[in-house]
Amino acid sequence: MVDFRVLRLLKSLHRQRFSSHFSISVKRRGAMARPFHLNTPLLESVSMTQRVGTPVFLKMENSQPSGSFKIRGIGHLCQQLATDSKGVVCSSGGNAGMAAAYVARKMCVPATIVVPSSTPQLVVQRLRDQGATVNITGKVWDDANAEALRLAETEGLTYVPPFDHPLLWQGHSSVVSEVAASLEEKPGAVLLSVGGGGLLCGVIQGLKDVGWTDVPVIAMETVGADCFNAAVKAGRLVTLDDITSEAKCLGAKTVCRKAF
Amino acid sequence: MVDFRVLRLLKSLHRQRFSSHFSISVKRRGAMARPFHLNTPLLESVSMTQRVGTPVFLKMENSQPSGSFKIRGIGHLCQQLATDSKGVVCSSGGNAGMAAAYVARKMCVPATIVVPSSTPQLVVQRLRDQGATVNITGKVWDDANAEALRLAETEGLTYVPPFDHPLLWQGHSSVVSEVAASLEEKPGAVLLSVGGGGLLCGVIQGLKDVGWTDVPVIAMETVGADCFNAAVKAGRLVTLDDITSEAKCLGAKTVCRKAF
Repeated sequence: MVDFRVLRLLKSLHRQRFSSHFSISVKRRGAMARPFHLNTPLLESVSMTQRVGTPVFLKMENSQPSGSFKIRGIGHLCQQLATDSKGVVCSSGGNAGMAAAYVARKMCVPATIVVPSSTPQLVVQRLRDQGATVNITGKVWDDANAEALRLAETEGLTYVPPFDHPLLWQGHSSVVSEVAASLEEKPGAVLLSVGGGGLLCGVIQGLKDVGWTDVPVIAMETVGADCFNAAVKAGRLVTLDDITSEAKCLGAKTVCRKAF
Repeated sequence: MVDFRVLRLLKSLHRQRFSSHFSISVKRRGAMARPFHLNTPLLESVSMTQRVGTPVFLKMENSQPSGSFKIRGIGHLCQQLATDSKGVVCSSGGNAGMAAAYVARKMCVPATIVVPSSTPQLVVQRLRDQGATVNITGKVWDDANAEALRLAETEGLTYVPPFDHPLLWQGHSSVVSEVAASLEEKPGAVLLSVGGGGLLCGVIQGLKDVGWTDVPVIAMETVGADCFNAAVKAGRLVTLDDITSEAKCLGAKTVCRKAF
């Protein structure tokens, strides 16, 4: 970690020269046209390329400021719907909640993240570190989401859906245009994971936007949170009884209709 | 890891649609103007910002294709000096060696990386995965470097210095122009680490290029590989007796004159 003498030096420089963190945020609020997500690196995986026998590239969405691709859609949605909002509310102890908290902080809009009591303390702390108010309600996500919808209604907050909204998909589609600008030829396939289907919808839109409609998409789900697979098998939307995967906050019990 | 059925599907898609890896590399060779490095994310560290009391941003150079900033300078140097080379030779079992091996592969130029016998097998394997010939010579870096210089002379290979060359510094300077394009105001200070001083020279050049000559640079060294600190204290270039840090391949026994 950083040496204490360096910390003191930085603090003294701060007093002399830096404007405060808050003033930077205020400045950012004006620049609404600029998206909150970054153009992330597209890296070739040497080990997967060797194993598969064809180049495999990874889009490093983990290096987004909020740690996941969710910032693309949620940033876009908030820039469209929440510029004059009293506050945003989102029911997710996962990547969507972190993205909503981050985007709201950058927009100087209060964020309330509603999570169930099963949410790990570390996640709650990280959301608070982003300046969000964390509201712990109920045992499972459905309880937390009902509370988020109630707050949106009664408090006049802007509800940020985790995966089921056209503005989210439009925001997520930027991942494909970045890949198209980096790769020198059309990929043979796109692999992605499905939780609620938001990324899938965004990628399909992005593939249309860049004229890659013939590129197959291979959607993968976690065993125990496979609501998309269940829907495809049943030929209709299916709501899982429960998410039995360990990664509870990365799945949904029902895939979004658009993805299906 | 990837499911075997997906591997089979990818292999079948490969046969149908992908051109080979080699053909992609050949194409890349033509596009020499395009640099090999990426514009990496500049992320605010929430924990360091809280601790220091002023925004702290990290330039995520670990997400470069070769895993470090070295690709900036080495990519630029090879694009200037090695386009028609019989091969490049570099004496580094660290980040410079990985960058040289990666860049050479992309340019379809053979790479020989000379490393001392103390180099871990994992590093040797990673260099080989990048298509490099690994030549294990001597006990310490100085032995390996003497062999690299000998090979450059006798075999007509292009010697890639790990840190001491103006083309390297020019390449490294791109990190500052990227930061200037991302940040909304001039930073209060730049913190960086010094091994041989190549990054320091590049950052100082970059700060000049963007007109940030009054931004202080705080250079940090590892205890046991502190050749820059020793030179500053002595008022002249100093060659350390030995690198006693565990991170042997990240240090140099003498800092480059330009940095001093």
